Amino acid sequence: MTRTLITGGLVITATDEIHADVLIEDGRIAALAATGSQEWSADHVIDASHKYVIPGGVDAHTHMELPFGGTFASDTFETGTRAAAWGGTTTIVDFAVQSVGHSLREGLDLWHAKADGRCAIDYGFHMIMSDVNDRTLKEMDHLVSEGISSFKLFTAYPGVFYSDDGQILRAMQRAGSNGGLIMMHAENGIAIDVLVQQALARGETDPRYHGEVRHALLESEATHRVIRLAQVAGAPVYVVHVSAQQAVTELARARDEGLPVFGETCPQYLFLSTDNLAEPDFEGAKYVCSTPLRPREHQASLWRALRTNDLQVVSTDHCPFCFVGQKELGRGDFSKIPNGMPGVENRMDLLHQAVLDGHISRRRWIEIACAAPARMFGLYGKKGTLAPGADADVVIYDPAAEQTMSAQTHHMNVDYSAYEGKKVTGQVETVLSRGELVIDRREYVGRAGHGVYLPRSVSQYLG
Amino acid sequence: MTRTLITGGLVITATDEIHADVLIEDGRIAALAATGSQEWSADHVIDASHKYVIPGGVDAHTHMELPFGGTFASDTFETGTRAAAWGGTTTIVDFAVQSVGHSLREGLDLWHAKADGRCAIDYGFHMIMSDVNDRTLKEMDHLVSEGISSFKLFTAYPGVFYSDDGQILRAMQRAGSNGGLIMMHAENGIAIDVLVQQALARGETDPRYHGEVRHALLESEATHRVIRLAQVAGAPVYVVHVSAQQAVTELARARDEGLPVFGETCPQYLFLSTDNLAEPDFEGAKYVCSTPLRPREHQASLWRALRTNDLQVVSTDHCPFCFVGQKELGRGDFSKIPNGMPGVENRMDLLHQAVLDGHISRRRWIEIACAAPARMFGLYGKKGTLAPGADADVVIYDPAAEQTMSAQTHHMNVDYSAYEGKKVTGQVETVLSRGELVIDRREYVGRAGHGVYLPRSVSQYLG
Amino acid sequence: MTRTLITGGLVITATDEIHADVLIEDGRIAALAATGSQEWSADHVIDASHKYVIPGGVDAHTHMELPFGGTFASDTFETGTRAAAWGGTTTIVDFAVQSVGHSLREGLDLWHAKADGRCAIDYGFHMIMSDVNDRTLKEMDHLVSEGISSFKLFTAYPGVFYSDDGQILRAMQRAGSNGGLIMMHAENGIAIDVLVQQALARGETDPRYHGEVRHALLESEATHRVIRLAQVAGAPVYVVHVSAQQAVTELARARDEGLPVFGETCPQYLFLSTDNLAEPDFEGAKYVCSTPLRPREHQASLWRALRTNDLQVVSTDHCPFCFVGQKELGRGDFSKIPNGMPGVENRMDLLHQAVLDGHISRRRWIEIACAAPARMFGLYGKKGTLAPGADADVVIYDPAAEQTMSAQTHHMNVDYSAYEGKKVTGQVETVLSRGELVIDRREYVGRAGHGVYLPRSVSQYLG
Amino acid sequence: MTRTLITGGLVITATDEIHADVLIEDGRIAALAATGSQEWSADHVIDASHKYVIPGGVDAHTHMELPFGGTFASDTFETGTRAAAWGGTTTIVDFAVQSVGHSLREGLDLWHAKADGRCAIDYGFHMIMSDVNDRTLKEMDHLVSEGISSFKLFTAYPGVFYSDDGQILRAMQRAGSNGGLIMMHAENGIAIDVLVQQALARGETDPRYHGEVRHALLESEATHRVIRLAQVAGAPVYVVHVSAQQAVTELARARDEGLPVFGETCPQYLFLSTDNLAEPDFEGAKYVCSTPLRPREHQASLWRALRTNDLQVVSTDHCPFCFVGQKELGRGDFSKIPNGMPGVENRMDLLHQAVLDGHISRRRWIEIACAAPARMFGLYGKKGTLAPGADADVVIYDPAAEQTMSAQTHHMNVDYSAYEGKKVTGQVETVLSRGELVIDRREYVGRAGHGVYLPRSVSQYLG
Repeated sequence: MTRTLITGGLVITATDEIHADVLIEDGRIAALAATGSQEWSADHVIDASHKYVIPGGVDAHTHMELPFGGTFASDTFETGTRAAAWGGTTTIVDFAVQSVGHSLREGLDLWHAKADGRCAIDYGFHMIMSDVNDRTLKEMDHLVSEGISSFKLFTAYPGVFYSDDGQILRAMQRAGSNGGLIMMHAENGIAIDVLVQQALARGETDPRYHGEVRHALLESEATHRVIRLAQVAGAPVYVVHVSAQQAVTELARARDEGLPVFGETCPQYLFLSTDNLAEPDFEGAKYVCSTPLRPREHQASLWRALRTNDLQVVSTDHCPFCFVGQKELGRGDFSKIPNGMPGVENRMDLLHQAVLDGHISRRRWIEIACAAPARMFGLYGKKGTLAPGADADVVIYDPAAEQTMSAQTHHMNVDYSAYEGKKVTGQVETVLSRGELVIDRREYVGRAGHGVYLPRSVSQYLG
Repeated sequence: MTRTLITGGLVITATDEIHADVLIEDGRIAALAATGSQEWSADHVIDASHKYVIPGGVDAHTHMELPFGGTFASDTFETGTRAAAWGGTTTIVDFAVQSVGHSLREGLDLWHAKADGRCAIDYGFHMIMSDVNDRTLKEMDHLVSEGISSFKLFTAYPGVFYSDDGQILRAMQRAGSNGGLIMMHAENGIAIDVLVQQALARGETDPRYHGEVRHALLESEATHRVIRLAQVAGAPVYVVHVSAQQAVTELARARDEGLPVFGETCPQYLFLSTDNLAEPDFEGAKYVCSTPLRPREHQASLWRALRTNDLQVVSTDHCPFCFVGQKELGRGDFSKIPNGMPGVENRMDLLHQAVLDGHISRRRWIEIACAAPARMFGLYGKKGTLAPGADADVVIYDPAAEQTMSAQTHHMNVDYSAYEGKKVTGQVETVLSRGELVIDRREYVGRAGHGVYLPRSVSQYLG
Repeated sequence: MTRTLITGGLVITATDEIHADVLIEDGRIAALAATGSQEWSADHVIDASHKYVIPGGVDAHTHMELPFGGTFASDTFETGTRAAAWGGTTTIVDFAVQSVGHSLREGLDLWHAKADGRCAIDYGFHMIMSDVNDRTLKEMDHLVSEGISSFKLFTAYPGVFYSDDGQILRAMQRAGSNGGLIMMHAENGIAIDVLVQQALARGETDPRYHGEVRHALLESEATHRVIRLAQVAGAPVYVVHVSAQQAVTELARARDEGLPVFGETCPQYLFLSTDNLAEPDFEGAKYVCSTPLRPREHQASLWRALRTNDLQVVSTDHCPFCFVGQKELGRGDFSKIPNGMPGVENRMDLLHQAVLDGHISRRRWIEIACAAPARMFGLYGKKGTLAPGADADVVIYDPAAEQTMSAQTHHMNVDYSAYEGKKVTGQVETVLSRGELVIDRREYVGRAGHGVYLPRSVSQYLG
Repeated sequence: MTRTLITGGLVITATDEIHADVLIEDGRIAALAATGSQEWSADHVIDASHKYVIPGGVDAHTHMELPFGGTFASDTFETGTRAAAWGGTTTIVDFAVQSVGHSLREGLDLWHAKADGRCAIDYGFHMIMSDVNDRTLKEMDHLVSEGISSFKLFTAYPGVFYSDDGQILRAMQRAGSNGGLIMMHAENGIAIDVLVQQALARGETDPRYHGEVRHALLESEATHRVIRLAQVAGAPVYVVHVSAQQAVTELARARDEGLPVFGETCPQYLFLSTDNLAEPDFEGAKYVCSTPLRPREHQASLWRALRTNDLQVVSTDHCPFCFVGQKELGRGDFSKIPNGMPGVENRMDLLHQAVLDGHISRRRWIEIACAAPARMFGLYGKKGTLAPGADADVVIYDPAAEQTMSAQTHHMNVDYSAYEGKKVTGQVETVLSRGELVIDRREYVGRAGHGVYLPRSVSQYLG
């Protein structure tokens, strides 16, 4: 039995801030004790004085190696999970993709093959359903029972990921009975495609038009729609990457009615805006993702919703495409720019900066970045907290360190940073995954294949 | 020059209640004078003492001879407009139907042919667009310029009248620029079809399931959706046959935001309920229409919205199918019951009863039944009021007469009454259309072909 | 019998715009006829070609000779009603004031004495209740029966007009049973007085602090409060001089709930702002009134509410104090500036300008300035419309005339104009009161004492 | 050093449910370890197998020995805190009362004298301010600095506890600057007193009229009012004993706006209703408290708000008066019934029953009964959780035990139970306060004087 002891730090969870020593045995948290109160022996002692000791981050929305628009997201499971660890994230939930005409199983198998043996940290899968039918509905039950307890559908991307409202309703009904959670990309893709064609016909081809055609009201419309479909189905729903204040209003309204409606936002919506999409020389393409960045004034309502718990989770929607060769596919036609941005490495730091900026409290930082995503997707207890019995996924975080974000220094496999030059205070120092060092005082000591697949229970926000 | 004089009545318009004589010359209102103040000579004098003198009703939503589900609505333009006159309605706006693959023009021509020379009262047309495309969008402009200034689209009835959100958006954009008004049947037909199939598969075939599968939330969802699409398009929108309180909430919210959003309800939603749909021996089929009847408790919010002006118009959606031979097509499968109910003859009386019941004031009765529909659809000034210059469409209404509604006595060409046995106070006594008697002291003296086609201006609620 | 004929104008009422001749007999509208259709003889013919013919304005909120802060409003009933006529207003409803310790009757008698024989146009009275008790509650019944059917109470001005919530509740209960309408000045005066003292203690003595201490939230709070008190009492309520967007929100919310809640705003809130209060050299004092002017961005919600009918009436709250000698009482202490502004002469013109600016339609202009105030306060039929039987209070309005507002040219007895230098299009040309000329082609031909006291029925917005 | 070990239980906190052993040293939680993982020696071992191990309850709203209506609440600090311990509550925050004309200090000293040396468990004080003035405002600062960080004011009880809106505003401003939290009893007492007098004058003297005159809208009105006053003051506000669904709506609206607005409800509003107030033979008097019990249908919105976190805390407002001799003071005049109900012993059990009934989760039970009240009132870390460093206030709770609530068996010093005969599942087995046994397997082993006074930090919900 290996024992590791982390001493002298400030242990922060979603609810507590305690000066405590953390004892790790065989990869799990064995005990917490008031600092210095127990005379524990250990094989390995980590001094966390003047540091935070926090649960490893849980990023519930990543797309490693995602095929999109004729290319692939540039981070593999190997490079992406390594970068995640650098950023203090020890669990990702990635999206396996069903292709139209194929079974869920085939898609899942393919994603297992991509990830197996390559990850630096633990990982789970959501399932993207591109083809809801009698057969795939039955498959949902099996998947829930083997730990794939969440399914993503799209009101956007007609002809690719799009499901019609009847398909969405059927999937929600099924989830309502098998315990699964439906995740929705909520934008009215049918209407957006009309606006895209009209913009291109007017010669509006620059990246900033991506933000204009994907109208905020077409996000809030779809958000309201999927909420009501879920209500008819008697099922919960989780809306991914919420960016528009009007969409937040719909979520808040539904939650005031007591409906089991949840939402996530992403750092890019909290820190970036249409100002970035309008950067010259096609630089705006770096910020093309869907839902799109919104005008700066939307940010306040996102922060407020994170405080009022109308939004519960901050994920990254990490889906990087290199500027050179990939984003450039959309020169002259913004609709051909691969949708997605890098971020898996930046999330914990940006949200710590938000603590310093007064947007959220320290505990809320841990809640939205670790505890809530773990609970939302059936990993809590094992992940997302520091408590006896939990996996020893632990980050020693230096709240005073200063860093400048940059593609020069980041570890994601992408040729730009969305936050190039941004200075933040706070940095990951050491990361353990199930008790093993992955980052040791800012040196990578992990290995591909350490990370294991995580079957998940049903959402712990329900019932 | 023919002069008719109506003396001694209480003239009621949307805003005034005055004791006045009404002078008609050449089919138009020439003058109003305080009772007895002017010594007018006339060819024909009608004594309206102790009676109301009101503008003829304007029913902005009828479906004469509509093909639906393999059969046709049982009232022709001849029988239907005659019945309308019996009920105090002197103008209808019916729906010409474009079939998929055909032009708007073809549909319009067909409806002109049906109506021409057959109507007892004046009539206009809205256009149902079943196939929004580049060609039909261009046709819209022409139609607006020739007096077809309103276009109905459906989020319901996939495969028949259904338009997708992109088509709806395009039509709204076009209306935003050519002055047309988009009318929406707002129910999520795609989702409803799923629920229909599920209900039938469970053996739920009775008419009452029609009300259950067409869930109130699927009306409010679509109502919200079309409001936001209109907002994106920068266009107004008019929602037809609103029945669910949740849909009213969406309309009220949009109107509080200052959006040009309008709505109508119908007498069946104000006076009938799912109790009727549940009548035994397939009698519920008589009440099958879409949107469906709602539980009784929805009625209060409809009345309230009529008082607060969140709903502006009461139309009938008159679309009768005989119980024998037509409604019966749906025995054993509620989804095969032709959708629609008779009512063109009953509207003015039912709403007068609502005055007596304390739901609305007398002036509001005239506003929602005459003035507002005329104004909404570009007929005001000519229709919907009693003012110098207006068409002399006048009803002498006896507020004290008592009647019992019944298929035995009504004049609609349908074998049942939705209000069989209902006693109401108030009855039409005499009706003039452009100065000519159509009903004379409860005797029909009109003729097919008196009624003429009414080209309409754009909606007078806008600009 | 005197007959006057107005020919060739465009007659505009709250609902109709008709080309009609208007026949006046013995001071009342005898008849309207399509232009030129009737060959009427008349003693006096007014050619209204290219002009509007509109009902005389009804200003439901004036304070002639009001004692306030040790001085008196500078317009007497003689000067004030003459100025009103110059501005196209033919009816005012002024506020008789009960003093604490005195009966309503004493206050009313005093106001009758002030007005009797001095007015150029007709006038009625509301009653300000400063002392709600068993005796004055009984008096309310008598006053309603003699035509004083509305009573104003204040949540502001502690020690002067202030009533506590129990007194307000009792007055509302009484009104609920005797048909009276409670008008509320809704600001939390108790809280405001705290802020006033704190501001003065900080040396904030300039007029602009008047706007800061009378916080918008203290208007919306009181607005919500009086709405709920009225709901408990089962009575309607009318909120005077609404200026804050948050107060509009409360009114809209209550009206969506179907409550009989009404509101007025005033031209100063629609056209002026805290920018004026901040004018240098104590000029801001000219704009000191309560509720105070708000930041410019509140105007949009007031205009929207006027369009959506969440506000029904525009009155002036005309209460002029000269800059020299009166407003100056507050130099060095904004709380000593007499509260009030001139405006009775400007209202019709400013609202016509709003038609040209696209804020409201022509018919809505007449509705909020003539018809709605008449109906709200039991004068409709007689005042506020042009219909057979109504008093012949008629304005011939030139929609193309241009004018510049100025104290140099206005007729109010006050040494400044709140709109000095403002150019507007549209001007009153001729004014008749009960068929007699008051203004004849921009010459004053009226006389003190023509105007008579108007006993009023209960509000026609109710029942 | 004394060591106590609790083994084998399910440790439940606001966020975690873990199988863990709890080590107590010198009255504090020293460590938690996965069950059986550490071989700890201890002086005393408690076997918690099949039991829950939870933080001791924190009841933030009690009134021991409160003088009210000429009598005193029947529980002393000795009897009341003993009963609290029996019910699994190990901390109370009681209300010291300032009398009009006296200093805060005098009131506080008096309450210290009442409690000192008598309590079985730890206790803190809020301060009731009955007389807000310059002097008492200054005293607030001192009190905050010595651990009285919350102040209660009343919009109810004119002439007793009532403060006017100016006083409330000033106290809120002061709290906004010194870190204090204003607690509000929010009912419009001025209006209620009018309704009380009217009811009595009509001969409506039974207890049920207590519920009618204290109208739900007069609670929601005052709730809205204090929210807006707090917003003007730039301060947070905590509304006590929320009972009306309309009041919940106001809280939810304010929280959606991001305002620091908080609310508590009490078990009596969740489990009892006006049905109880209407019990015959004056039995309804047992349920007279203010805010009053509401009709049963209000309960659903309270439960929903507890789930959505629009209400954060469940306290008891424990303020018992014996039926005989105390409640009876109000025979023939409901307004003379002492306001208050017993409940300090029942709260944890009733809320556990709510877990079984599906209203809330187990973790939410601990949050609303232990963690949130501790955090709201500056005790968290020390109280309200089970974490290293916290006071060892621990309850061993048997989730399977069945009990019947009754005055025969309860330990509160009052002659009736509000829940007489109610069967619930779950019971306190053992209670420790700072590591010492107070209840040992359902035997009282504590002592008066064990409990100590708790100076509190400012609210941990803020900043």
